[in-house]
Parts: sequence; C-alpha cells; structure tokens
Amino acid sequence: AGGVIEMSHGGGGRAMAQLIDELFCRHLDNPLLAQQNDQALFTPPPGRLVVSTDGHVIAPLFFPGGDIGSLAVHGTLNDVAMAGARPLYLAAGFILEEGFPLADLERIVASMAAAANAAGVPVVTGDTKVVERGKGDGCFITTTGIGVVPDGVEISGDRARPGDAILVSGTLGDHGVAILSQRESLGFETEIGSDSAALHGLVAAMVEAVPDIHCLRDPTRGGLATTLNELARQSGVGMQIREAAIPIHPAVAAACELLGLDALYVANEGKLVAICPAAQAERLLAAMRAHPLGAAAACIGEVVEDPHGFVQMETRFGGQRIVDWLAGDQLPRIC
Amino acid sequence: AGGVIEMSHGGGGRAMAQLIDELFCRHLDNPLLAQQNDQALFTPPPGRLVVSTDGHVIAPLFFPGGDIGSLAVHGTLNDVAMAGARPLYLAAGFILEEGFPLADLERIVASMAAAANAAGVPVVTGDTKVVERGKGDGCFITTTGIGVVPDGVEISGDRARPGDAILVSGTLGDHGVAILSQRESLGFETEIGSDSAALHGLVAAMVEAVPDIHCLRDPTRGGLATTLNELARQSGVGMQIREAAIPIHPAVAAACELLGLDALYVANEGKLVAICPAAQAERLLAAMRAHPLGAAAACIGEVVEDPHGFVQMETRFGGQRIVDWLAGDQLPRIC
Ligand SMILES: Nc1ncnc2c1ncn2[C@@H]1O[C@H](COP(=O)(O)OP(=O)(O)OP(=O)(O)O)[C@@H](O)[C@H]1O
Ligand SMILES: Nc1ncnc2c1ncn2[C@@H]1O[C@H](COP(=O)(O)OP(=O)(O)OP(=O)(O)O)[C@@H](O)[C@H]1O
Ligand SMILES: [Mg+2]
Ligand SMILES: [Mg+2]
Ligand SMILES: [Mg+2]
Ligand SMILES: [Mg+2]
Ligand SMILES: [Mg+2]
Ligand SMILES: [Mg+2]
Repeated sequence: AGGVIEMSHGGGGRAMAQLIDELFCRHLDNPLLAQQNDQALFTPPPGRLVVSTDGHVIAPLFFPGGDIGSLAVHGTLNDVAMAGARPLYLAAGFILEEGFPLADLERIVASMAAAANAAGVPVVTGDTKVVERGKGDGCFITTTGIGVVPDGVEISGDRARPGDAILVSGTLGDHGVAILSQRESLGFETEIGSDSAALHGLVAAMVEAVPDIHCLRDPTRGGLATTLNELARQSGVGMQIREAAIPIHPAVAAACELLGLDALYVANEGKLVAICPAAQAERLLAAMRAHPLGAAAACIGEVVEDPHGFVQMETRFGGQRIVDWLAGDQLPRIC
Repeated sequence: AGGVIEMSHGGGGRAMAQLIDELFCRHLDNPLLAQQNDQALFTPPPGRLVVSTDGHVIAPLFFPGGDIGSLAVHGTLNDVAMAGARPLYLAAGFILEEGFPLADLERIVASMAAAANAAGVPVVTGDTKVVERGKGDGCFITTTGIGVVPDGVEISGDRARPGDAILVSGTLGDHGVAILSQRESLGFETEIGSDSAALHGLVAAMVEAVPDIHCLRDPTRGGLATTLNELARQSGVGMQIREAAIPIHPAVAAACELLGLDALYVANEGKLVAICPAAQAERLLAAMRAHPLGAAAACIGEVVEDPHGFVQMETRFGGQRIVDWLAGDQLPRIC
C-alpha cells in the first residue's frame, strides 16, 4: 500500500519472491501456478495444440472497458481461439518500470485474474523483470496461450476460396476510439468503451454450428482492412466487401470523422472476421447472432478471384475503391 | 541497412508485415512459423508437457559470450529443461524502442535463430510491438517454451529430502561477472565470458543416468544462494554446503573481491543445481562430467533436516554461516 516498484523487485531475491507470492500468486491463484517450479506441468487433452504470444504495451494502462491486465488475457486468448481452439493455459511475463505504483500493479493483476477466471483459463506460470526509471513505461505484459483444436477443425488464413462469405462479429473500431479518447493531447470525449473480450466462447459456438469455417482472424492492429489484406495474401484471393454492410457504431463513425481516421483501420480487441463457404454463411451468422459477443454480426462481402490479392469495397455511394494495407501508424500503442 | 525502428514497425500495417517477413521470419525460418497464422499449430508427443516464460531485459544487449537473442533462447529452454523435459517449441515477443538500429535487431535475431537451431527448438510464433523513444530500452524479448517430460521423471522443487546430495554443473558467477565487466561505470576488465548455454542436452544425459533426480534448478537471478533457499523452502528442508567444494573460476573470485560481491549471489545462465538421492550422486556426477556443459560439476553438500529451512555453509576456514536469500538487487538487468 503506497509503495512503488523498486529495482529489487526484479533482483531475484527476497523482495521479488515476496512480490510474486503476495501480489501475483495471491490474485492469480491456481494449482498449477502453486507448483512454484521454473515451469508449469500439465497433461494436455489428446489432439493438436496451438501456441500464440502477444506483447501488450497499451497506453494508457487503464481505459474505458478494460486495462492492460484484462487486455493481455483477451488478446492472447483470442489469437488461440482464431484456430478454432479451446484455450487451456496462459503464461504472463511482466516488465515493470522502477517507480511504478504497487497499487496500479495490483489493480492490473486483479483485473488479469478476473479476466482469466471469467474465461476459465488460468495463468500457470509467469516472470517479473524490472527496468530502471525511464527505461520502460510503467507496465508491459507479454502473454502466451496454449489451446487444443477440436478434431475436424481446419481453420487457417490460407483457406479462403472464391465464393466464400466474409462475416464480422460486430461493430468495428470501438477499441481504438476508446483508447484515443483517453489520450490527453486529443481532448475528445465519447460514449464508446473498448470492446476487449475473450472470443473463445463465441468461436466454440461457431465451430459447433459450422465445423467447416475456413478462416478466423481478430482484426487487431491495422483493423479490418489490414486483416482482410493479410487473409487475401495468404490465400491468394481477392475480397469484395460492401461499405454499407459493415457495422460501425455512430459514435465511432463520428470520432473517426473528427480525428480524420478510417474506422476500417482502427484496432478491435473483441471482434473477429470469419470466412466460410457461402452455403454455410446463414447458419454461421445465426450462430454468431445467438451469442452475446456476436449480436451485431454481419455478412460484409465475399471472397473473389484476384491474382493481385486486392481487397475492394463498394462504397456507400455505389463507387468502388481499393482498401489497402495500413500504411504508417495512425494509432501507436493501441494494444 | 542503416535504418532504425519506427513506430510504424509496430503499427500492424505494411511496415510491420515487411519487418516480420524480411527480418524475423527470414532468420527464424521454420515450417510452423511459416503457417503465418495468429498461432502455431502442432501435435505434441504423448505425455506431460511443461510451459515456462521469461522476459529478457539485459543491459548491455551484447556481451562476451552472447547477446539478448541467444540469452532469450537459453533462458527459457533452461527453465523448461529444469523439469527434466525435452523442449519442443519457443514463442518470442519483442518490445522494441523507436530509434533502435535495424542492424542491431538483425544481429539479435540472427543470434536467436542460431541458438534455436543449435538447440533444435524452433521459434514457431512471435509478436512485435514498438514503444516511443524513451519508453523502452532498445530491445526486450519475452520467450515462452513448451517441452515434454519423459515418463517416469518426477522433478520438482519440493522433492529434496534429508540425506540427498546437492550438485552443481560447473563454475558459478561467470554470467554476472561478464555482464558487469561491460558496464562502463564499473570500468573493470576480465577474461570471463557469460556461460549462457542451453542445458537440455546435459539434462537429458542426467535423466538417462539417474531417472530419480529429485530437483533441478538453474541458479539465475539471485545466484546459487537464492536457488538453494528457494528449494529449501519448497521442500521444507535445510541445506548444508561446503564453500571449498563450490567451483568458482579464479577470475570470477577476483572480480567479486574487487566489486564487493559474493559469487554465490551472482547470476548464471548455463549452470544448474541438481538434488538426488545420495546413493545416486556418484553416478549423476559422472554423467554430468561426461557432458561438455558439466565438465566442472561438483557435489557441494547435502540436504539436511531443518524446520527453519536454513541454508548453511561450512566456510573455507572451518566456520559455519547462514547463506541467506539475496536481499536488495546487486546486479540490475542481468538477464
Ligand atoms: N508475474 C508473475 N506472475 C505469476 N507468477 C510469477 C510471476 N513472476 C514469477 N512467477 C513465478 O514465480 C516463480 C519464480 O519465477 P522466476 O522468474 O524467479 O524463476 P526463473 O524463471 O526460474 O528465474 P529467472 O527469471 O531469473 O530466470 C515461477 O514459478 C514463476 O512462474
Ligand atoms: N518478432 C516476430 N518473430 C517471429 N514471428 C513474428 C514476430 N512478430 C510477429 N510474428 C508473426 O507474424 C504474424 C503476425 O503477427 P501479429 O502480431 O501481427 O498477429 P496478431 O497477434 O494476431 O496481431 P496483434 O499482435 O495485433 O494482436 C504471426 O504469425 C506471428 O507469429
Ligand atoms: Mg494478437
Ligand atoms: Mg490475431
Ligand atoms: Mg523467470
Ligand atoms: Mg528463468
Ligand atoms: Mg529457472
Ligand atoms: Mg501479435
């Protein structure tokens, strides 16, 4: 209470052991973490596994709809889930800056624990490093997730085929706009909170309804536009989407207008893009809409043949334009 | 060539995709990484798995005997190996500071790739984040490793029993002293290089010779002294070691003398502590000495009954003193 992170909290000695026991392990408490070894031991269910890792350097650390602790859980769970997998375990590595308030750290770890509990995925091993004041920025968290892929599921970015339907699970741009509203320099306000959420429950419902989903991806940094370009490149296809079909909250549209941003390039943390055979699209959309995190799901276009791998959009006014990869970095440290 | 990391390299768009393709994936090249999905998919061998994660924030980034790239591979492989496990895969999350020279990054990633190749453990998935100048320190790398534990192996920090022998695989303090020699402010020179190395080959030979090893731990931050205290606490035992039996390179002893350090508290990155039944100690020691990374292995003492969990040392002069946990942080950013 009232304390701050000191270099000794990363020194490997008594102060670090105490911080790990009394702060990290107290909040993240679970039987595997309690093994207290250099690693966590577990017996996975039979089948194929996936592993994914994401660093989190978001600024500010606390924002409407979440904080770096919950985000570090959701972000990695979502990349695991995008294989159609059921996440099993998380690892978390903290890089803390000297002088960081312990009260803030506690709030972050409590939030991480709550997100992990809600998701049913424990943080089973971790690490704590400390860097000198001015050599970090409060708190960075790198999480790694392991999951198991149900038999028969074959989801990969190279499986989009001409004719496939392109679906999104809800409104786009909420996370990025919520973060920007917190940047003092911009000085604008919005009702929008981050959409940060763990998507594996939604994915399980989707895979159950349509086992033959071809691609899943969470449109994080670079937004929907960049994700579609990635998938197009990987699959060697083009994409044709319709602007009018893309769900965007009016407040997000307004904020983007104000800030000179394009919502298609703004990051999301609780949304996914799904690509499936056209014949399954209605069924998949119904399954998505039946889940709370997919209530605003929509079909936004289709995969087309295109040797150039272009993503093209029919604009609201009936024109046609190319939706390119994000160039530059509009939104630094959004995740 | 000649370039530096820019914020756009973390923006999720074209610049990041190019950096990942042309720098990371080119060096780390392997079939799983080439899947280019949000996660790497693999089928593990049957049995128990382990997972471990470590952030690496070492300063300086390049040092005699290694750099942050090779260290980030060795550090995590060793924590996996300390379960007696065979490491299978690595994940790597980079947090880069704006302005970091691309040439340095390339050197680091090439070194990481060489270490991963030498160990036979590919980096199968990764992440790249960029923070503004002054909000990081060049390059931080958090790696996570997954390994498989051979059937019948039950290595855990709570298995030390009174009467067990305590072995170390070689000289202590080399890594820490090598790093300190690079800190300009200290201005001392030494012939010592870091001992940074991947220990899973040594561990495999040890487990083969003595499947009933009770504990394995790599004495990293906090050094041998802290590691023994950790194991004593976990197992609810005491330890009795002999100063004269502890292998320390004369140059390390001299440097510690000069700097006012105790080599028992100095970090190692290529050494391990093993605890096994006394009856197996000779056999285990022989197996260690037969391996290049265990050539200077020694038996340094034994586990004793002690409700206080003290680690005690018979000094070179026949006295007896308590070897406590590391207090404070003598050696910031040693790994
Ligand atoms: N932030 C954290 N959250 C949860 N558990 C943690 C955290 N930091 C460390 N731990 C746990 O504490 C124990 C000790 O971690 P520590 O990092 O000291 O071990 P190590 O990786 O073997 O050492 P080093 O990092 O010096 O190489 C491990 O069981 C680890 O999982
Ligand atoms: N430093 C790196 N080394 C190796 N591979 C990397 C590295 N950074 C990213 N990758 C790989 O590049 C691909 C894209 O990574 P990216 O981080 O953009 O995906 P993501 O995690 O889904 O997005 P985000 O990080 O915005 O949530 C993945 O296959 C990832 O494994
Ligand atoms: Mg991600
Ligand atoms: Mg993703
Ligand atoms: Mg660690
Ligand atoms: Mg370690
Ligand atoms: Mg260790
Ligand atoms: Mg990522």
